[in-house]
Amino acid sequence: MITKPATLKGTRDFLPHQIAKRSYLFDTIRTVFQSYGFAPIETPAMEKSETLLGKYGEEGDKLLFRILNNGDFMEGVDTGASSASIASQISKRALRYDLTVPFARFVSQHRNELQFPFKRYQIQPVWRADRPQKGRYQEFFQCDADVVGSESLWHEVDFIQIFDEVLTRLGLKVFTIKMNNRKILAGLAEVAGHSDRLKDIAISLDKLDKVGKEQVILEWQSRGIDQEAIEKLSAIFAMKEKKSTEGLRALLAHSEIGLMGMDELDQVMAHAKALGLQSAKLEFDITLARGLDYYTGAIFEVVSDEVAIGSICGGGRYDDLTGIFGMPDMPGVGISFGADRIYDVLDQLQRWPADMMTVPDIIFMNFGEKEAFRCMQVMKEMRKMGYAAELYPSPVKMKKQLKYADDRGIRYVGLIGGEELSSGKITLKDMQEGSQESLELDGFKERMKRG
Amino acid sequence: MITKPATLKGTRDFLPHQIAKRSYLFDTIRTVFQSYGFAPIETPAMEKSETLLGKYGEEGDKLLFRILNNGDFMEGVDTGASSASIASQISKRALRYDLTVPFARFVSQHRNELQFPFKRYQIQPVWRADRPQKGRYQEFFQCDADVVGSESLWHEVDFIQIFDEVLTRLGLKVFTIKMNNRKILAGLAEVAGHSDRLKDIAISLDKLDKVGKEQVILEWQSRGIDQEAIEKLSAIFAMKEKKSTEGLRALLAHSEIGLMGMDELDQVMAHAKALGLQSAKLEFDITLARGLDYYTGAIFEVVSDEVAIGSICGGGRYDDLTGIFGMPDMPGVGISFGADRIYDVLDQLQRWPADMMTVPDIIFMNFGEKEAFRCMQVMKEMRKMGYAAELYPSPVKMKKQLKYADDRGIRYVGLIGGEELSSGKITLKDMQEGSQESLELDGFKERMKRG
Repeated sequence: MITKPATLKGTRDFLPHQIAKRSYLFDTIRTVFQSYGFAPIETPAMEKSETLLGKYGEEGDKLLFRILNNGDFMEGVDTGASSASIASQISKRALRYDLTVPFARFVSQHRNELQFPFKRYQIQPVWRADRPQKGRYQEFFQCDADVVGSESLWHEVDFIQIFDEVLTRLGLKVFTIKMNNRKILAGLAEVAGHSDRLKDIAISLDKLDKVGKEQVILEWQSRGIDQEAIEKLSAIFAMKEKKSTEGLRALLAHSEIGLMGMDELDQVMAHAKALGLQSAKLEFDITLARGLDYYTGAIFEVVSDEVAIGSICGGGRYDDLTGIFGMPDMPGVGISFGADRIYDVLDQLQRWPADMMTVPDIIFMNFGEKEAFRCMQVMKEMRKMGYAAELYPSPVKMKKQLKYADDRGIRYVGLIGGEELSSGKITLKDMQEGSQESLELDGFKERMKRG
Repeated sequence: MITKPATLKGTRDFLPHQIAKRSYLFDTIRTVFQSYGFAPIETPAMEKSETLLGKYGEEGDKLLFRILNNGDFMEGVDTGASSASIASQISKRALRYDLTVPFARFVSQHRNELQFPFKRYQIQPVWRADRPQKGRYQEFFQCDADVVGSESLWHEVDFIQIFDEVLTRLGLKVFTIKMNNRKILAGLAEVAGHSDRLKDIAISLDKLDKVGKEQVILEWQSRGIDQEAIEKLSAIFAMKEKKSTEGLRALLAHSEIGLMGMDELDQVMAHAKALGLQSAKLEFDITLARGLDYYTGAIFEVVSDEVAIGSICGGGRYDDLTGIFGMPDMPGVGISFGADRIYDVLDQLQRWPADMMTVPDIIFMNFGEKEAFRCMQVMKEMRKMGYAAELYPSPVKMKKQLKYADDRGIRYVGLIGGEELSSGKITLKDMQEGSQESLELDGFKERMKRG
């Protein structure tokens, strides 16, 4: 029976030229992470269901890919129950949904093998049962760096520099690192007399860019925020406009947590600016809220100002990531690069470097067994010099062999026929320049350096 | 509620020092694959169930990890059916079991975007619901290279060179590439008068090393191979002993396919030996059978002669890998490196290189805000020079900071206190040599080069 060859919706194959681009992206991120002292870890794709369930809210639970138990999994299952209840009976494994929860599990599990503060980075795929659509996949990579076991704000400064360094290296010229502090938002809720309604206030505020001021106020009203509070909160709109903290200290004067957030923000901003940034604009954005679930201090978001595609990086500080795994009081801060979006940005702006190798440096034409064997000997030496070389596998017509070299975009073609066999030379065709020359193997390296 | 932090049985976390080793392994394999003209591809972890089911035999089907459909997956399901039948109703996705079937699916799906012969390599994890035990995991990496669309035996020669090059680079000193040809086995079955019983003959023969000659004969008998055939086949035992093809041509004189296999074997062996191998012994092994399911020509297996751990690499030629996906007559040949086993071999032999970086080159001690800021400036310059540097995040007692540097095995410690702030110098402590010196930032690079 013939199976139709097709990937699942929401998943992708990567062809060589795509892998080349992605490797360049990952390598750049990896190199910068390492230069700041971060070390790589990896965790399994499959985690125990109990490790992941309940960590991403009710919606998140629904988006987990769960793995069927093997063997006679239906034995003893109450088939009258709901799908959700049956799922927990027939599935004890699930696929990683992000890198944060597995990292918290990792730190808790290996606490005695690690030195704290522990700085790790992790570049691995994650899986989400989101409805597939343009730019949204069910399998995609995350690139995270976190420090746990430290409250020092120098890490925030490091992360701002890392955003700047990675994106500059990747050739982004105009981008903005937006920054806020969760304690400032908590302070705003406090001075508005709604300490318990931080989430409601922030969720609506986060939409300001999209829906406008009037809509935010309407939403606050419908969420039960009273008029007096709304009047106090309205000072925010002017701050948003000015991208400035002017007046914020006065507004937060009676909120201890709010002022603490201001101090943190000012300190990080001042240090980052004094150290200097290459391409990034660093801006305060009072409406920035992000997923408020575990962030407790600084929050970050990076947007490209050249391509409208939403945030390309994010991150923030948390007080207690590992408490759920029985390891309390482990503060930390981390960031994430959205590899797929950055890939799309570089594609749109055509900012990929020119020299990303996906094909060998040279391919030899095949004129028969004796000639081919000589090519094999020559290629062996070329590989020792660091070049990638291959032989067209069979002695078919030259035209077909040359077309293959051309179709693959291989620049140099090596020819060893009867004449070269006796002279010991190689004829080298430069497909790009359309030139041809005869040289000794010793001269090959020089020729390649000349380009 | 607190969740106990634990990985699933059969899966592993990788700590930084393990990632460093594994990256070195993968990078070596990748570099050699590329030098022979292979290009990287990746396929999704999740494939349609129909792509994988039935491709690995009945046992394989049971070892697939299948993914539960999302939403109300039980709706309309006949709950009275067997677990196997229910599985196919509630799961339309499964995790990749190897890299070969997804590759066949990839080639068939993208045939119009590829140039043939197509040479790809792929280094990705696979998942199998095997019972976990020492050295056997449910999630592990495979490192494959294949050429499809070519019958040329030069590829076999390339692959022998690749085995030799990769394992030599990794520091293996004594290992054997065993080689056989499926056509020779078919020829033996033919001359024994049991062309249809190739599988029975080969499966028993494959156990010769483990169980001995007498047991193999007993097994043949129990599989219904008659006495006359067994007498003919017994010539094999002497050949196995001598590791030689002597007498094989005579034995196969009346089998066309057998003689073809001999020709292929001789040609590949002769070319590989004439080109020369660095560390590998290349041996004919008439008992080598491997999974006979799709191999049709050369078969390979590599064993370490220093560590008894079974085969560390394998591979072979096939006539028709993509036929199941509606793309017939696509011959090819491929190999696979068993990364986990090679990792274990290198661990046992302690052949890892000494300089695998998992920690930064230098860590700066933290004496307070002003000093730390100067460290941040200095580190920025050091990173531009290509060094990895970090700051101890908070100004705690020196002893604690130094212990942290020591525990992590960071060789150089940078000190910028009040004195250095005014002199503009850095005090550099070499934790390995126990020495200390004062230098300018400009002198740092020179000092690091000296080591």
